[in-house]
Amino acid sequence: MTTTSSAEPGHQKLAWARAHMPVHTALRDRYREIRPFAGLCIAVCSHIEAKTGVFLETLAAAGAEVVFTGSEPGSSQDDVVAALNEQPGISGYARRGVNEEELARLHSRALDHQPNLILDDAAELTARLVHQRPELLDGLRGVCEQTTTGVQRIQAMLADGALRFPAYAVNHTPMKHEFDNIHGTGESALTNLMLTTNLLLAGKQVVVCGYGDCGVGIAHKARAWGAQVTVTEVEPRRALRAHMNGFAVRPMDEAAGIGEFFITATGNRDVIRGEHFRLMRDGAILANAGHFNVEIDAAGLADEAEARYTVRPGIEAFRMGDGREIHLICEGRLVNLAAPTAMGHPAEVMDQTFAMQFMAAEDLLRRRDQLNAGVHAVPDAVDAEVASLKLKTLGVGIDALTDSQRRFLEAWRADDILESP
Amino acid sequence: MTTTSSAEPGHQKLAWARAHMPVHTALRDRYREIRPFAGLCIAVCSHIEAKTGVFLETLAAAGAEVVFTGSEPGSSQDDVVAALNEQPGISGYARRGVNEEELARLHSRALDHQPNLILDDAAELTARLVHQRPELLDGLRGVCEQTTTGVQRIQAMLADGALRFPAYAVNHTPMKHEFDNIHGTGESALTNLMLTTNLLLAGKQVVVCGYGDCGVGIAHKARAWGAQVTVTEVEPRRALRAHMNGFAVRPMDEAAGIGEFFITATGNRDVIRGEHFRLMRDGAILANAGHFNVEIDAAGLADEAEARYTVRPGIEAFRMGDGREIHLICEGRLVNLAAPTAMGHPAEVMDQTFAMQFMAAEDLLRRRDQLNAGVHAVPDAVDAEVASLKLKTLGVGIDALTDSQRRFLEAWRADDILESP
Amino acid sequence: MTTTSSAEPGHQKLAWARAHMPVHTALRDRYREIRPFAGLCIAVCSHIEAKTGVFLETLAAAGAEVVFTGSEPGSSQDDVVAALNEQPGISGYARRGVNEEELARLHSRALDHQPNLILDDAAELTARLVHQRPELLDGLRGVCEQTTTGVQRIQAMLADGALRFPAYAVNHTPMKHEFDNIHGTGESALTNLMLTTNLLLAGKQVVVCGYGDCGVGIAHKARAWGAQVTVTEVEPRRALRAHMNGFAVRPMDEAAGIGEFFITATGNRDVIRGEHFRLMRDGAILANAGHFNVEIDAAGLADEAEARYTVRPGIEAFRMGDGREIHLICEGRLVNLAAPTAMGHPAEVMDQTFAMQFMAAEDLLRRRDQLNAGVHAVPDAVDAEVASLKLKTLGVGIDALTDSQRRFLEAWRADDILESP
Amino acid sequence: MTTTSSAEPGHQKLAWARAHMPVHTALRDRYREIRPFAGLCIAVCSHIEAKTGVFLETLAAAGAEVVFTGSEPGSSQDDVVAALNEQPGISGYARRGVNEEELARLHSRALDHQPNLILDDAAELTARLVHQRPELLDGLRGVCEQTTTGVQRIQAMLADGALRFPAYAVNHTPMKHEFDNIHGTGESALTNLMLTTNLLLAGKQVVVCGYGDCGVGIAHKARAWGAQVTVTEVEPRRALRAHMNGFAVRPMDEAAGIGEFFITATGNRDVIRGEHFRLMRDGAILANAGHFNVEIDAAGLADEAEARYTVRPGIEAFRMGDGREIHLICEGRLVNLAAPTAMGHPAEVMDQTFAMQFMAAEDLLRRRDQLNAGVHAVPDAVDAEVASLKLKTLGVGIDALTDSQRRFLEAWRADDILESP
Repeated sequence: MTTTSSAEPGHQKLAWARAHMPVHTALRDRYREIRPFAGLCIAVCSHIEAKTGVFLETLAAAGAEVVFTGSEPGSSQDDVVAALNEQPGISGYARRGVNEEELARLHSRALDHQPNLILDDAAELTARLVHQRPELLDGLRGVCEQTTTGVQRIQAMLADGALRFPAYAVNHTPMKHEFDNIHGTGESALTNLMLTTNLLLAGKQVVVCGYGDCGVGIAHKARAWGAQVTVTEVEPRRALRAHMNGFAVRPMDEAAGIGEFFITATGNRDVIRGEHFRLMRDGAILANAGHFNVEIDAAGLADEAEARYTVRPGIEAFRMGDGREIHLICEGRLVNLAAPTAMGHPAEVMDQTFAMQFMAAEDLLRRRDQLNAGVHAVPDAVDAEVASLKLKTLGVGIDALTDSQRRFLEAWRADDILESP
Repeated sequence: MTTTSSAEPGHQKLAWARAHMPVHTALRDRYREIRPFAGLCIAVCSHIEAKTGVFLETLAAAGAEVVFTGSEPGSSQDDVVAALNEQPGISGYARRGVNEEELARLHSRALDHQPNLILDDAAELTARLVHQRPELLDGLRGVCEQTTTGVQRIQAMLADGALRFPAYAVNHTPMKHEFDNIHGTGESALTNLMLTTNLLLAGKQVVVCGYGDCGVGIAHKARAWGAQVTVTEVEPRRALRAHMNGFAVRPMDEAAGIGEFFITATGNRDVIRGEHFRLMRDGAILANAGHFNVEIDAAGLADEAEARYTVRPGIEAFRMGDGREIHLICEGRLVNLAAPTAMGHPAEVMDQTFAMQFMAAEDLLRRRDQLNAGVHAVPDAVDAEVASLKLKTLGVGIDALTDSQRRFLEAWRADDILESP
Repeated sequence: MTTTSSAEPGHQKLAWARAHMPVHTALRDRYREIRPFAGLCIAVCSHIEAKTGVFLETLAAAGAEVVFTGSEPGSSQDDVVAALNEQPGISGYARRGVNEEELARLHSRALDHQPNLILDDAAELTARLVHQRPELLDGLRGVCEQTTTGVQRIQAMLADGALRFPAYAVNHTPMKHEFDNIHGTGESALTNLMLTTNLLLAGKQVVVCGYGDCGVGIAHKARAWGAQVTVTEVEPRRALRAHMNGFAVRPMDEAAGIGEFFITATGNRDVIRGEHFRLMRDGAILANAGHFNVEIDAAGLADEAEARYTVRPGIEAFRMGDGREIHLICEGRLVNLAAPTAMGHPAEVMDQTFAMQFMAAEDLLRRRDQLNAGVHAVPDAVDAEVASLKLKTLGVGIDALTDSQRRFLEAWRADDILESP
Repeated sequence: MTTTSSAEPGHQKLAWARAHMPVHTALRDRYREIRPFAGLCIAVCSHIEAKTGVFLETLAAAGAEVVFTGSEPGSSQDDVVAALNEQPGISGYARRGVNEEELARLHSRALDHQPNLILDDAAELTARLVHQRPELLDGLRGVCEQTTTGVQRIQAMLADGALRFPAYAVNHTPMKHEFDNIHGTGESALTNLMLTTNLLLAGKQVVVCGYGDCGVGIAHKARAWGAQVTVTEVEPRRALRAHMNGFAVRPMDEAAGIGEFFITATGNRDVIRGEHFRLMRDGAILANAGHFNVEIDAAGLADEAEARYTVRPGIEAFRMGDGREIHLICEGRLVNLAAPTAMGHPAEVMDQTFAMQFMAAEDLLRRRDQLNAGVHAVPDAVDAEVASLKLKTLGVGIDALTDSQRRFLEAWRADDILESP
């Protein structure tokens, strides 16, 4: 393998990621000979940076012809793209800082490879194929989707009668959403936000919009560092959960006037909008931790503002008619991917999330005949298998049920339960 | 209503509980006229103390003929039993400190009322009816079960072919297990344990067996007060969750030698047993927070010991051959119900849990014809309804989706997602 | 030693305490032969329960003639008093549930022993001696005081020109106030409050008055279990500290309308008073964690109320003119000592606090000639020595400075600092 | 004021910092007319970046002729230096990435201005003046020092007989060390470390060396995000404090084999050294959060290693003879200042710390005649004044003592305490 100078830093990044993704090492060891993906083209749509690269390498090691493309305009890294394109069995199309039109073109080139399987992020590539390239549906065996937003979108396809293949809701597995969302998004949204602003969490009024897994991670970690956190929600159970965990829960029109930082993590649009901007304190800082840059109505903010200008890398100020300034981080794009300091999710988190994608893909192909067109849960055993692999790499031991314990779990008569084994 | 002197303190306790169970107040207000349970006999098997009493009053206010009995030998309170038996529409059989045989007899008397519905705890009364009183099956419309242990046991009935009626797994609703288990058991297991021992959590080595909701509550709250917590598990996802939340996860034979306190919350038997007792530090203290007193093998401990004696109310010492002493709290019974200081779960938690039982019962009766014999999830809308009721009593407001947000959640094409509403 | 039946439970309690006070075991081992207190009468004024008893035993083992008396009307335990009076070298005067007049009489009897040293709690016995028994001043070599309130009071004596002997501010040692106050008071105030009320901390609005060490412990531990905590303060640094730790800081007239629980820990009087009662929510619960029962103006509350009655053991309701009820816990006495479930501070905490008293007493006697009449800090080395003893009993190892590290700490020239050792 | 293009980003950074340093705004408003520093040359030695710049502006606004220089080779920012040199009353000498020799030369040029007061960081400029420019001692009225390391160094000067002027231990004020160290260092050390490595805190084994304020901040914040934290210490009280707060406390030779991350915060040298490197896990990552780059023995690490190379910006790998790799962050320099993502301390923290320096300087000059040569505590009232200013800018209100409360604090007789006011 020859390396060009533009690929060099990409190779360095891949080496670091590889060293911190031990589950992928285990997967390569296990599937190198078996080659479950031999003869298949797998398209991966994701943020193309080092951790994704290690995932692609692992798919290729397991026999796949891998084609990749970026899932988001600003999150792919050119050096990693170059380094990946130098590897056998892997090719792809991604570039940092494209616009929506260019992104569509890159996706299209990836689809030209006629993928048999799509491992998707936010259902970006799946939606393109279904909507614009229906001729490829015949060759497509299925989709594995790793985000809340993407599963939601595929369910919308299903409701719309547009889903012709089985899709695995990889995002919904405990091994994905409890770790990637809570810990990965939780940590990286906050570290990037704090370094981009050079401000302190301790003592701050932080409003977290949405108390799903991402919101849970952000809210708890912000409070743990000394912030006073207010949560907004639309779902009563989540709202009550936040309340019982000690957060102030308020409707957005009350929270708007309280926050110094606002972080959105809802998977919905316009969560912060015109009526809220009007209530905000001078200097309020808005950031988004959800997939799409629609959670904060940036266009609406610009409409209300008299002037806008960049105050620091990654921070734009909007001056309102009454003199207040509102600060928007990275145009409302995912702060942990778009910030000047952004490295994407931590390596260990992506190790686990991509391992779920890998194992889900392997399972989907093997059980293809049993699966109808629709959104399916990844079998629980697959999820548990990834957890066991991960515990092994961590050197963490757990117990096994004894026979008498197993019998106990199957007993129901009072005598069977209370008597000796 | 005349009140006897033995019932007097029971009425006092009921008044306090009523004042702290606002969801029940709301339920009585809503269903007093509708009387959804009119003409039906509802049997409630539970810990018969003040909060349960308020629940019984609410069922009676909604038209039921209520019969109650205790679910556990040591957890019912005689003064509350007396006070309840003085109320119209309520009668029952429970006594503190009965043995297993007497408990069976009390259950039998309750079953004599030929209940149409059982609202059960640990499936105690359901198992008796199925096993010993099959003639009552015809009149039984269904069961609502509120504990992990109980649902497990009804599923064992189902696997065994013994289930002839629909059962609602009330325990599995978010509104039950996330609040009652995490916060109710979490807080009360620890407060009772610390006051029974008069020791400090800060700086202690605490081993929590099981990282289900109860274990999660106990582990996090113990650490939050300064304990070093080790978690044991048999399920890899739970183990990994504990690890990522910062706990030391170890197999029980490693944890045994570390702990100063051990708290079981697994729903299984003999989680701490002979091989573990041998490894324990002198002075180790063992308590159980699961339903049955089988999680710690107390008989096995007695077998290994050379002597046993009471050191304080609620604490028995077992002197081992090598001079070490191991301390067992309340014979391994539920520490938050059996401890000398025990008041049972906090009122607000039971307000929510019993409201779930109430609403599940109402729903089960209404939808009875659609439900086959089997274990059913309580419909999500019922769960959400209880959450909304509870938020209302708390005065906590949340947001509603706007029309454009609702449309967004149904969209999947890139254009629909990224364009203005 | 013969044991009467009334002393029996006291001996049992002492045995449990002894087993959990390993620093005292170490002190008895070390000083049994040396007998530093031989020939001296030491008066101990404290809450006379099991842990205090172990302290008294240790003083006696080190040669003292020990006389004890209770520091607070409701906190001594008769069985422990009886058990102590059966031990050689120890005698004393304390009874549970005395009034202020009887307490004064008990103190007086203790003073009749003509103590050479007073180890005091809240300066109770010291103030009596100075104010009412000046003839004993000649024999008194000094005082060691273990509470915030007591040191404050002795400083008031000093300002008043009434202090004729050296007093050690044992409370001010890190080993005392950081552990006893933060962890001991923090934990036991909350466990007793929650079990007395049978309510849940999670989701509650809790107002903590005072952010000294006791307040810090209570506020952090309450929040860690899911409460929303508001802090009130009079000192700007403490207020800012609370703010930066994520608490809402408000003046009392704002906090009054927010809290469901109020806990005072200020060492001052009337922190909650008439103007605040008027603003409170229906059902508000008031508890005190400071030494004196003056932090909540109970008399003022009674004046404002139309009716008062006991709702549960330890809880009195005051019905206001507008129908609201305000609940006062244990008449505003120290909740962790006066509550129905109260066991006093956890054993490990008192092990440390009393070890400080012991070592301070030993040091004060040894250095008596160098100490003028006044309030003195306990020498840092004494404090460090107790810490080392405690770490040893815990089996916790720490590092020692190397020679080059010691030199480094003494260097100041750039070259010395940056060059190799 | 004309602005050169190299200064442009510096001015942008200053504007952002100014907006987030409200205490400095309040100081400029208060002292602009009074001009307490008129006619004096004040030398500031610090990390010359935006927040320091706002401090310099505030000194200049209060009448000082300000000269600045960098305290550390890698922490000053050239654009800010340029922007500051364009402001009236301010001039200075600092450059990013100098070596020790160049740093000495820059210091020397600053000293050429013959400062009357030094506001120092780590006593860098003070030590140069005392050691190399004794002729300037006559003009020097005093020094204010803001770091643990620096106060330690000045105390070493005193012990060495080299201190000829009064020095204020600004670091020791509660307003400095409790906020800057705990929150400022705590947050920024962790955010920079995690983004430099792109790894996850959750689930990690983190060893924190030193449990002073910086270590406390790092240890608590790391655990709060899911790390398992081990603390090493040399001081028994600090060790016990860590233990009671739930941390594993171990000697370094035990901790060495456990950690995945090591963070030093001791103010001492060679805390991690040869014998520890040999015990470390493959992939261990070492970072320093103390002032000097001597806490980790980097030279010793290089000696033991067979090869070293850069793996990512800010991370160097050392390959040991047995194949293990140990990773050193930023050559062991202060991670929150030297990391690729570093912005220095958050603005609010520096607002407070520099406000302490300002007010200490003002007080030292005013009280110069009463202060002998030596290390002095900043008067408590000055500290409280800064806290009050800060609370005001936050809009946080606190209570004032009533007259009767004030009297209570001065009372000591039982009657005075317990009777009505």
